[in-house]
Amino acid sequence: MKNCIVAQSGGPTSVINSSVVGVVIGNKEIKHYDNVYGGINGIEGILQNRIINLSELTDEDLELLKYTPSSALGSCRYRMKDFTISDQEYLKFFQILDELDIQTFFYIGGNDSMDTVSKLSKYAELKGIDKQIIGIPKTIDNDLLYTDHTPGYGSAAKYIATATLETYLDSSVYSNNGIFILEVMGRSAGWLAASAVLAEINGQPVVDFIYLPEGKFSKEQFLNEVNDKFQKKNKVYIVVSEGLKDETGEYLFNTANSNIHDGFSHVQLGGVGKYLERLIVENRITSRVKTLELGVTQRCAMHLASMTDIEEAYLVGKDALKCSVQGYTGFMVGIRRLQNNPYRIETYKVEASKVANNIKYFPKQWITPEGNNITPEAVEYISPLIMGEPNLLIKKGLPKYMDLKVK
Amino acid sequence: MKNCIVAQSGGPTSVINSSVVGVVIGNKEIKHYDNVYGGINGIEGILQNRIINLSELTDEDLELLKYTPSSALGSCRYRMKDFTISDQEYLKFFQILDELDIQTFFYIGGNDSMDTVSKLSKYAELKGIDKQIIGIPKTIDNDLLYTDHTPGYGSAAKYIATATLETYLDSSVYSNNGIFILEVMGRSAGWLAASAVLAEINGQPVVDFIYLPEGKFSKEQFLNEVNDKFQKKNKVYIVVSEGLKDETGEYLFNTANSNIHDGFSHVQLGGVGKYLERLIVENRITSRVKTLELGVTQRCAMHLASMTDIEEAYLVGKDALKCSVQGYTGFMVGIRRLQNNPYRIETYKVEASKVANNIKYFPKQWITPEGNNITPEAVEYISPLIMGEPNLLIKKGLPKYMDLKVK
Repeated sequence: MKNCIVAQSGGPTSVINSSVVGVVIGNKEIKHYDNVYGGINGIEGILQNRIINLSELTDEDLELLKYTPSSALGSCRYRMKDFTISDQEYLKFFQILDELDIQTFFYIGGNDSMDTVSKLSKYAELKGIDKQIIGIPKTIDNDLLYTDHTPGYGSAAKYIATATLETYLDSSVYSNNGIFILEVMGRSAGWLAASAVLAEINGQPVVDFIYLPEGKFSKEQFLNEVNDKFQKKNKVYIVVSEGLKDETGEYLFNTANSNIHDGFSHVQLGGVGKYLERLIVENRITSRVKTLELGVTQRCAMHLASMTDIEEAYLVGKDALKCSVQGYTGFMVGIRRLQNNPYRIETYKVEASKVANNIKYFPKQWITPEGNNITPEAVEYISPLIMGEPNLLIKKGLPKYMDLKVK
Repeated sequence: MKNCIVAQSGGPTSVINSSVVGVVIGNKEIKHYDNVYGGINGIEGILQNRIINLSELTDEDLELLKYTPSSALGSCRYRMKDFTISDQEYLKFFQILDELDIQTFFYIGGNDSMDTVSKLSKYAELKGIDKQIIGIPKTIDNDLLYTDHTPGYGSAAKYIATATLETYLDSSVYSNNGIFILEVMGRSAGWLAASAVLAEINGQPVVDFIYLPEGKFSKEQFLNEVNDKFQKKNKVYIVVSEGLKDETGEYLFNTANSNIHDGFSHVQLGGVGKYLERLIVENRITSRVKTLELGVTQRCAMHLASMTDIEEAYLVGKDALKCSVQGYTGFMVGIRRLQNNPYRIETYKVEASKVANNIKYFPKQWITPEGNNITPEAVEYISPLIMGEPNLLIKKGLPKYMDLKVK
């Protein structure tokens, strides 16, 4: 008897379950493992023996799961201790794997999860434990090194660009239009905000300014350029990363919430979007400013996912399984872009330790010299990732999704 | 030469342009008018002679327009004076119609717009002006009397139910899940919030509590029921109308923003969702509370519109044209539901004056006795309105929309 287990970690994405399905179907095809187990709530749940058998899922279940957003196995934000300090969890983890005859652990996640993959595989190697640990990339933030892009990003980018297009139309209907600010996710890297550049009406981008954490942001310049644009067009559409910083490197959402009376210390005045709104109003450019935080919809809107992204998430799952058959451990399956026209990729193996705890920033040379927009090179990079629409199973007018945790 | 003109008013919806296309194609079929003009920015723009010729649009343009969200002709929030006080605008309006040989004015809007339809038609009648004024209903709020429902509502309901489903999955991934609050539009009526009841996983509704302006809301009861549910399930999903009021009839978002120091009088602390979040945190139920305001995405997400809604918006436009051929004036085209299984409707004519300045509230008998959820009768009412998915024209991975204002 030889089994494997797959689990999910960190913030959900629309396509994170496609990778699970990739592992399960990959194994169905070559029958390398007797059972593919699923760990509930990532490594945290595995350590509590919360494990289900995914090999019992029907083909219909798997098809549904492939098109269900958000970690169906549940997730965690659990960092393993350094095993040189304490290896209790490590012992327990491998004991649980032993009890279920599990040879390989697949972990779907971002750079924190790759840290776990790296630590577990190193520990196994050190102790002569014959188990394999393989990483499968996932994050809407697209901030993993050693992979052209991450599964999850394309769908978030497609959602953001569509929401930009639709809210642009919504915010342009009056003769006295104001300023619209769209705040998108991205604490450290601006990949998500950059995707708004794809939104076009009549062949023209609808966004006037995009501000990323990687750009140089100056309040004075911001107020000047927004004011100029507003005087010219009577409307301005702005997209901003939640992680935008000021000239001193301080997060603007911190600044926004720091100058609050004691009695309001529990009150979160909102993110960077609301902060920029107040800046515009206080400087009397106009009082007609509307801010929208897209929030978690960015990472779970499967109804608007990119088919390219779904298939790539599926592929890295499947290729992780192949990678385990070949005997690898401590590796992550990365994506290499071969060409853009037509778009072609291949997967390859990269040491999880290289990916762990690193951040891939949006390239500075893809930000315009003014620091307030994105270059055509970035458009060329993002564009292929949002292509294709999934054909979801619709029941009573709504997409049908499944939840393995309550099954 | 005999022409007509159509214009849009009030807040946009996803399907408001389908009604414009209904008028234009309705006329193409029977060739009653030589030209169908479009007024830019509603009656405000017509009074400024900002008018385009919609009969010049190609079939391809019209197809694109039918599936473009948000008022493509622009909108306004313009209330005409009572003509017994001043009829200057009325004189100007009919003079502009005369200059372009316009016989009929079609106005797409909510109860304010039906007030305009009523006033203009009464004035014309009084002065013996041979012009017709016809109303076409539209509002995501579904709060117009004398129509079973309003075009725009079904698409907003479908979007809200889908967003509920997806954010429920997103908010359920951790072992220590918190409380999720979704704030939806609806200042006076709870129709939009009620639609969240449609979201189901494995045949079970995902929403624990829905609070509408029409229900009786008590802070004490709210805290008790949320606490009970949280102790039982370790997660709670709440949907709330922006217009929820407290026991005294005061809007909770007013309460939320009233107790702010002078220095922060310009700061909007957020809506009712954020207010309930603070209530939960301050009463120490849990600090893990997340609030999402869906915002304007509710009324412009054509990518998730209801095909039933699109076709009905088109139909009321087309039937408004027929109504004008029959010589009517001062009427709105309403929708009458004939049956549910299979769902069938017909249109009929109702005096715009009856619809004007009135609000159709969510029926109290469709709220559960506890006041915190929705009955199966309401599900039966809403369900048929969200059926069907449009087949949008996709270009480079994004829906292709048009904007008549910049054409």
